[in-house]
Amino acid sequence: MTITVRALGTLPDLVADDDLIGLLLAAWPGGPCDGDVLLVSSKAVAKVEGRVRRHVSREDAVAGETERLLASRGGLQIVRTRHGLVLAGAGVDVSNTETGSVVLLPVDPDASARGLRTALATRTGRNVAIVVTDTAGRAWRMGQTDIAIGVAGLEPLHDLTGQLDGWHRPLAVTAPTVVDELAGAADLVLDKAARTPAAVVSGLSPLVLPSGVHGPGAVAVVRPDGEDLFGLGAADAVRAAVRRTPADRRGFAHPGSPELAELVEMAAARQQWVRAEVLNTDSDPLVVIRADPDAVPGANPGVDADALVAAGAVMERVRVLCWAAGLRSSTVAAPAGAICAEALSLAPYTDRRYVDSTEGDRGQVQQGS
Amino acid sequence: MTITVRALGTLPDLVADDDLIGLLLAAWPGGPCDGDVLLVSSKAVAKVEGRVRRHVSREDAVAGETERLLASRGGLQIVRTRHGLVLAGAGVDVSNTETGSVVLLPVDPDASARGLRTALATRTGRNVAIVVTDTAGRAWRMGQTDIAIGVAGLEPLHDLTGQLDGWHRPLAVTAPTVVDELAGAADLVLDKAARTPAAVVSGLSPLVLPSGVHGPGAVAVVRPDGEDLFGLGAADAVRAAVRRTPADRRGFAHPGSPELAELVEMAAARQQWVRAEVLNTDSDPLVVIRADPDAVPGANPGVDADALVAAGAVMERVRVLCWAAGLRSSTVAAPAGAICAEALSLAPYTDRRYVDSTEGDRGQVQQGS
Repeated sequence: MTITVRALGTLPDLVADDDLIGLLLAAWPGGPCDGDVLLVSSKAVAKVEGRVRRHVSREDAVAGETERLLASRGGLQIVRTRHGLVLAGAGVDVSNTETGSVVLLPVDPDASARGLRTALATRTGRNVAIVVTDTAGRAWRMGQTDIAIGVAGLEPLHDLTGQLDGWHRPLAVTAPTVVDELAGAADLVLDKAARTPAAVVSGLSPLVLPSGVHGPGAVAVVRPDGEDLFGLGAADAVRAAVRRTPADRRGFAHPGSPELAELVEMAAARQQWVRAEVLNTDSDPLVVIRADPDAVPGANPGVDADALVAAGAVMERVRVLCWAAGLRSSTVAAPAGAICAEALSLAPYTDRRYVDSTEGDRGQVQQGS
Repeated sequence: MTITVRALGTLPDLVADDDLIGLLLAAWPGGPCDGDVLLVSSKAVAKVEGRVRRHVSREDAVAGETERLLASRGGLQIVRTRHGLVLAGAGVDVSNTETGSVVLLPVDPDASARGLRTALATRTGRNVAIVVTDTAGRAWRMGQTDIAIGVAGLEPLHDLTGQLDGWHRPLAVTAPTVVDELAGAADLVLDKAARTPAAVVSGLSPLVLPSGVHGPGAVAVVRPDGEDLFGLGAADAVRAAVRRTPADRRGFAHPGSPELAELVEMAAARQQWVRAEVLNTDSDPLVVIRADPDAVPGANPGVDADALVAAGAVMERVRVLCWAAGLRSSTVAAPAGAICAEALSLAPYTDRRYVDSTEGDRGQVQQGS
């Protein structure tokens, strides 16, 4: 199998309501063929869609595009955008635009891709898939790669699950995100310092959907918020567990089956003077924390200050651990002999999707075939 | 600019000590040209390097390849491998290998790439760059893309910093990870269900280093542990902050300038009966936590049980927040009038690199030009 990846020619500076398809066709030597994939940078699309903002600070622009802050450090903000994309600075960009202006991402890049696909088909009669690309960094790798944020005419994932490998064994969870790989391939031929925002990939016509069929769009590549394990930066997660507001919960995936006894054991580990245990009551489990009379030298455990302070620390540890594990907790009156008690409901927080299947998890950061 | 991406032909089942370059050349119609980039799946490389293990459980194989666990849920383990790669299951794979065996990643994929590059040059006299590829999921996106885990003959990042954009303004932090984009492009032409583990990209000869010059390898694309903000899953980060072992620190990036007063305010927020304040002593700052005599109705704050428990909870909150922010803390005797005190040293933990520049941070998850 062979594919070719070609940069289209230089485009003029784009402004709102420019005829982007007309300009792309003029920069396309030989013009499109059926089964081509046209990749266009989000910035070019954003400009013709009037997403340039002047007299707006970058900070305000980022805030306007942000759905949720995942992590911050110094001036860096890694956010989930309204599109569900995780990007530094919410995809707000100040390069390749005139001084004093910022470019926002298209409002609906999948709609943009569908519009371009339809316009190109109307103009040329050709069945061409469209990918709107953007540039994104990666948490654990240096540099950036281009990704697909808008797609029309391609299935974004090429799901191979159920196919057999070369040894006639079923392939494990394997679904190449072909639209992201296409976006990266296009970036190889584009020159960010020139005004060449588009490339065409030829040779993948089997992947291009029939004329007029757009597919689910790049939105299908967005992992739903709460289904990943990295919904908050590490330090941000700790702050969230201390704050414990309802909004903070969105950064935590729901665990499969939290082990309450294990969490309580972790909370009480190496805490002298304190015992913590889980009682199974008629309704919810009850975590009871009490000073250990054997360990407090000659003390009345009910009033020994160090024991009470330590018990408070253990209670807080139980609270943050259970909260992070998706368990609601509320404080109840301590039973006789206990300093304090924490009542825990095992009901999960219900304001999020719950992914039970560990098989489904495997795609998250996955070693493929 | 135009590039072509071609799959090489089918290879036989590979075993240890096979002549991989010889087999690849036999499957290469027309043979290599100067400036080509040859991409080979890590599995093919691993097999000829004898990295197939029989009679080893997948769990044991994963443990052997793991440097650090980032996150787990159910049977899913996302780990940092000995190579610095963040992968589910440490890159241990059971597909495309015979039943009962697992394939580990090459021991040193950059060395593998250099060896293949040298062997190919010796055999053919051609200057061909080599990329060893693997498949990886992404935390926030569905599906997988191929990435580069071994490189010889290419700069893995194409650093554009300092270049001017089309508007003659300096490009912001922009360094496309060309080797990852190449790996993805190759994946587009390969068939995971067939035995075609290699592809060649032609047309990028300006990026290929001179004959015999290998460049820094794919290891240069690995963000050093501790320089990212997502070194632990959200729930895992909370557990780490409760445990607070030295090893747990590796999951936390060092913050630029933690605001102690802000952390203490967060710790004491909505805690009745408790006041927390930061005293600047001659040496280290001291966080003093005391029951608020105005708020405890008619109580002796030194012995009021609820106040003491609440103070312990606030102390624990200070501890986890400061620990996550990279501050050492130790408990000291409470000054007069205080129930308890936490002494905090502002010295950062020194067992990790410290990234101060927020500019340097911007590449982490970044919107490019």
